[in-house]
Amino acid sequence: MKLMDIETPAALIDEARMAANIDRMQKHLSALGVRLRPHVKTSKCIEVARRQQEAGAKGITVSTLKEAEQFFAAGFADILYAVCMAPEKLDRALALIRRGCALTILVDSVAAAQAVVAKGKEAAHAFEVMIEIDSDGHRSGVQPEAAELIEIGKVLHEGGQNLKGVLTHAGSSYDLDTDEALQKLAEQERALCVRAAERLRAAGMACPEVSVGSTPTALAARNLAGVTEVRAGVYVFFDLVMSNVGVCTPQQVALSVLATVIGHQPEKGWVIVDAGWMAMSRDRGTQRQKIDYGYGAVCDASGRVIDGLYVSGANQEHGIISRRDGAADPGVVQRFPIGTKLRLLPNHACATGAQYPFYLAVSPDGDAVPWQRFQGW
Amino acid sequence: MKLMDIETPAALIDEARMAANIDRMQKHLSALGVRLRPHVKTSKCIEVARRQQEAGAKGITVSTLKEAEQFFAAGFADILYAVCMAPEKLDRALALIRRGCALTILVDSVAAAQAVVAKGKEAAHAFEVMIEIDSDGHRSGVQPEAAELIEIGKVLHEGGQNLKGVLTHAGSSYDLDTDEALQKLAEQERALCVRAAERLRAAGMACPEVSVGSTPTALAARNLAGVTEVRAGVYVFFDLVMSNVGVCTPQQVALSVLATVIGHQPEKGWVIVDAGWMAMSRDRGTQRQKIDYGYGAVCDASGRVIDGLYVSGANQEHGIISRRDGAADPGVVQRFPIGTKLRLLPNHACATGAQYPFYLAVSPDGDAVPWQRFQGW
Repeated sequence: MKLMDIETPAALIDEARMAANIDRMQKHLSALGVRLRPHVKTSKCIEVARRQQEAGAKGITVSTLKEAEQFFAAGFADILYAVCMAPEKLDRALALIRRGCALTILVDSVAAAQAVVAKGKEAAHAFEVMIEIDSDGHRSGVQPEAAELIEIGKVLHEGGQNLKGVLTHAGSSYDLDTDEALQKLAEQERALCVRAAERLRAAGMACPEVSVGSTPTALAARNLAGVTEVRAGVYVFFDLVMSNVGVCTPQQVALSVLATVIGHQPEKGWVIVDAGWMAMSRDRGTQRQKIDYGYGAVCDASGRVIDGLYVSGANQEHGIISRRDGAADPGVVQRFPIGTKLRLLPNHACATGAQYPFYLAVSPDGDAVPWQRFQGW
Repeated sequence: MKLMDIETPAALIDEARMAANIDRMQKHLSALGVRLRPHVKTSKCIEVARRQQEAGAKGITVSTLKEAEQFFAAGFADILYAVCMAPEKLDRALALIRRGCALTILVDSVAAAQAVVAKGKEAAHAFEVMIEIDSDGHRSGVQPEAAELIEIGKVLHEGGQNLKGVLTHAGSSYDLDTDEALQKLAEQERALCVRAAERLRAAGMACPEVSVGSTPTALAARNLAGVTEVRAGVYVFFDLVMSNVGVCTPQQVALSVLATVIGHQPEKGWVIVDAGWMAMSRDRGTQRQKIDYGYGAVCDASGRVIDGLYVSGANQEHGIISRRDGAADPGVVQRFPIGTKLRLLPNHACATGAQYPFYLAVSPDGDAVPWQRFQGW
């Protein structure tokens, strides 16, 4: 299929840009001597994860058991489920493990560790378990210096489970926008996670893995001593939030939404397109950043950014493209006639991708091929 | 399936609440002597639309051709596609019409009307076409007093197409929060759309239909003289945005997300649940309203609102429930132990529903049955 034959709205992957993004992260982490375990929650797409694997990634990270099941069915066997385990999901995890999946699960409390031990004893199974460490206060995890850390480790260890390691995610990196601040947070993420591992080891427990990562800290890190693997997800596509954070440019964003002009309000300078929030997602991640892109940046059909325009508003199936200066623009009807194709860059690739049952992967010669993605839990 | 056996996160429909919402809108509009053509973009679910039809709705409104195709395949034949037509979608619309669907399409420009005429002539077909009127400046539509309105009508009429009527959507009603302001906007919506129809009729064109509607203006309207049908969508579920607008209470919201507690940060008063923005959507529609609910209101498993808590933050698969007062809360671990089920009410039902491949419809006796919904375009 050629670009001009695609029904809109559609989620396009620029294959050349994606390949460059994959290559960049892989080379950076290989040079630092750590494994890359990409987070496939961004794409939820087998074709994308295969390209990450071919470039050198070891194993994958998932955010749901459905992702684990889908990727395992496609041949990915080394899977880390990086959300703290709800006890009632243990049966489903165990079923996947029994089918041959090397699934690692996560806890950050004594109660959850006890539930894992109870299920492990009941099923005569030793789960591979990591403990989540809170390295920046933004979400889950136990403090690296907390007494509870050792307690959790002991519950698992003495309960016959395999304490595989510690894991952290410096998600607050999304709020930064200088390389200096990112490097500092990357070092904090590394140091606190390594410290947690050392405390567990000092208490007599093997804790072989130290897993850190977020796309910004992964790219900013200059030293990963003590770390064994890095998890990063959104780097595969990048997006406008990452551009504002400073780890990519809009021209490196590999995911875009192809839209068609369906109307105008020239006295407001508006172009109406058939890509509203259902096509872009409701993500407004750039709202409090350096540049607020509304619901997206506007590019021509070839993917070149058109300066001075942005998606200022969105209804379910209507996107409103405005001038940054808010001026009237009688010429807008002639400049972007009804039927014109535009590409819109997303604030947040994970959220925008989730709106689509499939991507269209566009090769450098302009051919577009559907790549399935999946939805739900 | 019983509530406690449901894997989380899951989108629950409270059938009793939904039935009451359907009944309320239908009775209100029947009393005003107009037809209800519900907008099924909210649910994208055949089971839901059937209940609206059984209650007395005439025809449906859709926001995509995929919705039209899916609902037509399920036996809904009278369909209004209420987004201005992109010329390249005319073939797909025509294919649906050739299969027997009574599909009405929409334009708001001479250029789009000309494209419809060209396709109609090429295919020897007279499309049923409505003209979108801008009654509140929030999006698409031609001004009711504009010369272009008559021009569009003439292009269609003289081009052999059926000018079925005029349509408007007072979407700015979502920004209001008093009955007085809503009644005023409902009257503006009615008066301007009727005026547009009268101008077309005075110019010698039949214009039988006058279609208005948004959930808030539909419920606020006291007089719909000259209007033939009302479109409303979100009333079927309602949501927190509608509660802030003042047309429902949180206890009338029929859509909720069932979540499981997976962790705590007691020194911050946080409860972490397995429903993040993928489960709630990124919609922050209450952000600038009277009550900002973050990513959702918190209820116990039976659906009773728990005061003083809200979903203050969301990552992809993590929801952070905080106290409104932001206080530390060591008791939170005992009050909501790991594994606790909570129901979260959404800001925007259309956006939250879209995150799920199916709903679970919960009957008054607590049985849950899956109802499919569809995704994509």
